[in-house]
Amino acid sequence: MDHSPLARPFPEIPAIAGAVPRIARAGYKNWDRCDLTYIELDAGTAVAGVTTQSKCPSPEVEWCRNALVLGRARALVVNAGNSNAFTGNRGRMAVEAIAARVAGHLGCQPSDVFVASTGVIGVPLPIDRAEAGLDAAFAAAPCGWEDAAATIMTTDTFAKGAVTRAVVDGRTVTLAGIVKGSGMIAPDMATMLGFIFTDAVIDPAFLQRALSAANRASFSCITVDSDTSTSDTVLAFATGKAGNAPLIDDDSDGADAFAAALADLCLQLAHLVVRDGEGAGKFIRVDVEGAASDASAHRIALSIANSPLVKTAIAGEDANWGRIVMAVGKAGEPAERDKLSIRFGGVQVATGGLAVEGYDEAPVAAHLKGDEIEIGVDLNLGEGRATVWTCDLTHGYISINADYRS
Amino acid sequence: MDHSPLARPFPEIPAIAGAVPRIARAGYKNWDRCDLTYIELDAGTAVAGVTTQSKCPSPEVEWCRNALVLGRARALVVNAGNSNAFTGNRGRMAVEAIAARVAGHLGCQPSDVFVASTGVIGVPLPIDRAEAGLDAAFAAAPCGWEDAAATIMTTDTFAKGAVTRAVVDGRTVTLAGIVKGSGMIAPDMATMLGFIFTDAVIDPAFLQRALSAANRASFSCITVDSDTSTSDTVLAFATGKAGNAPLIDDDSDGADAFAAALADLCLQLAHLVVRDGEGAGKFIRVDVEGAASDASAHRIALSIANSPLVKTAIAGEDANWGRIVMAVGKAGEPAERDKLSIRFGGVQVATGGLAVEGYDEAPVAAHLKGDEIEIGVDLNLGEGRATVWTCDLTHGYISINADYRS
Repeated sequence: MDHSPLARPFPEIPAIAGAVPRIARAGYKNWDRCDLTYIELDAGTAVAGVTTQSKCPSPEVEWCRNALVLGRARALVVNAGNSNAFTGNRGRMAVEAIAARVAGHLGCQPSDVFVASTGVIGVPLPIDRAEAGLDAAFAAAPCGWEDAAATIMTTDTFAKGAVTRAVVDGRTVTLAGIVKGSGMIAPDMATMLGFIFTDAVIDPAFLQRALSAANRASFSCITVDSDTSTSDTVLAFATGKAGNAPLIDDDSDGADAFAAALADLCLQLAHLVVRDGEGAGKFIRVDVEGAASDASAHRIALSIANSPLVKTAIAGEDANWGRIVMAVGKAGEPAERDKLSIRFGGVQVATGGLAVEGYDEAPVAAHLKGDEIEIGVDLNLGEGRATVWTCDLTHGYISINADYRS
Repeated sequence: MDHSPLARPFPEIPAIAGAVPRIARAGYKNWDRCDLTYIELDAGTAVAGVTTQSKCPSPEVEWCRNALVLGRARALVVNAGNSNAFTGNRGRMAVEAIAARVAGHLGCQPSDVFVASTGVIGVPLPIDRAEAGLDAAFAAAPCGWEDAAATIMTTDTFAKGAVTRAVVDGRTVTLAGIVKGSGMIAPDMATMLGFIFTDAVIDPAFLQRALSAANRASFSCITVDSDTSTSDTVLAFATGKAGNAPLIDDDSDGADAFAAALADLCLQLAHLVVRDGEGAGKFIRVDVEGAASDASAHRIALSIANSPLVKTAIAGEDANWGRIVMAVGKAGEPAERDKLSIRFGGVQVATGGLAVEGYDEAPVAAHLKGDEIEIGVDLNLGEGRATVWTCDLTHGYISINADYRS
């Protein structure tokens, strides 16, 4: 698989004190690559998370939800190539076996061990391979974040990571994240697998609040194909090695800076997922304003971003704003055709219920030939606004997904 | 454009007394075919209709909604190649001009004239071409229903029609319909353009009730791409020439038979639209049972039918039931993974939260190689059930829609 044309190079991510990644080959699929990621976390690491809203979640998701209540973590295990979803009791036993193996190695509680798996649905994760893979990981030398990011990939075409910093209580804390996902990506969920590591000292409850807020403006605002995984999980781990006075609540010194940095990191990671959208050739930003409310604007933006006809028009570099009207109309939200305005790349192409007479098509055509597309819609009804990001729908998506399992 | 591999031959549709079709070239696009259909209806024709739920409907839809209140029709005009949607006052003026031209020709009220248009959005329908096309149609010889069905097509690959009969009050009444649509097809709407003609004597209010009920079980149960047109319209015209005692309500002689025949006709027409779904290679039936309610079953069935990952798996002839689990899970309806059962072509492949051990893959693989696919889901929660129909998602859909306007 070639890299996505929208790929970004992996950034320089420094070591995060107290979080040490290692990788190994469990052999979950018949492939020649590492597929098990093991990240050891120092005692005292706080954890927060958001998980899929699917009504049929994987046993890993159920395990993480239970463990998140305690707010503490000692390790993360990520399996690639088998999602272990919809595998009944055998799937649950596999997760328990992994947690027990790590707990025995570290001398911690199984509930300190977080597990995520990604890949085909319906095949129980082979416990023997997981255990052997873990043993190999325990013995392996630590690796860099890029190796970890590459090891959690499935249909992804490039390793995805981001890093940022914040000044908290006079100390610089680092926030780094890795993420995987390129199909089965839909909003209103903690989409795909994302793992964030920071050395900040932070209370788990505050970390959870900051992560949930960051998620609402990032992972919940992207869509590739409107399909939602049974395994979506984003976890944030704070090792507490930076030596700052603990971040407890909004009034803590540096709380705003930390929350802003976390939000920025999540948005970077979310954009990388869109950039690796299956078959993606264009990165599309959809801005909706003038809606009845922010929630209404969000639903209209998603209706546009999920419309196969809009996405194929962008793939064809066609300024077919009629399909945007269609997508606004089908969203079921307040909209008046005769007040609607539509922009491509900042150029107004339709306003007040009809095409702008004699608008200059040249800059619009040039914009659509690029690989970063902006669609703007003003409903001229109220103050509601929202932004979502998606990619176009191409032959590549069909090729990848009509022939994935076999 | 080749015919869809799922195409059906046009049936023998007899003349419907009191409804006379004619076609002409208005030249709405640069193409060498008839694109204006004019159907004259005898005085006394009753009419009923269902229209798009889009919040940005075309002026034709608004015109028909207003005219439907009166329940009487003298003519139908259908323009192909230009939907006239999102064209402001100029679009409204075009519809008014068409109705006025026909009213002048027939000596009837403009509100007796129904108008529908289909094609590109955002370009005002040229009034001069419409008027010249109408004049040509007025002078043309009557044509058959297949010619009318071919003339209302846009990206359709075959002309679509159906016919059925019912015995009402001891008389045989005929119901015939033509339909167009192959993309921008989504449920919960009176999807695409469909026109039904019957010689039955029927009160408009009862015709409306029967049509609305038939629509809920047919056009509202199909989806090609989850996108909803601004112009979707289904109209039923009853010329009253069959001589039966008027159908007034459910207690009228033959009311059940007529309603059943209308429901059957609508389902035939709806299936033809799916068979001409853009790029379709497989006709897919999705049956959901055991849901919390019928409405819940309908939403789950649509979640499956609209999932790009399910549709591409079927295109790839892959029994990837994991994607069906995913689609059930994302529907947001009550579902318990550990109670879920999934069938392909009647063969149980997953039950009680995991794959059926050693199920025979041969009949499933053979079923998926065919062009009529059945997906069955039992939630084992309640009594709710629903059926929807869709097609697969293929390279053909991308090819058609990434290059439509230009």
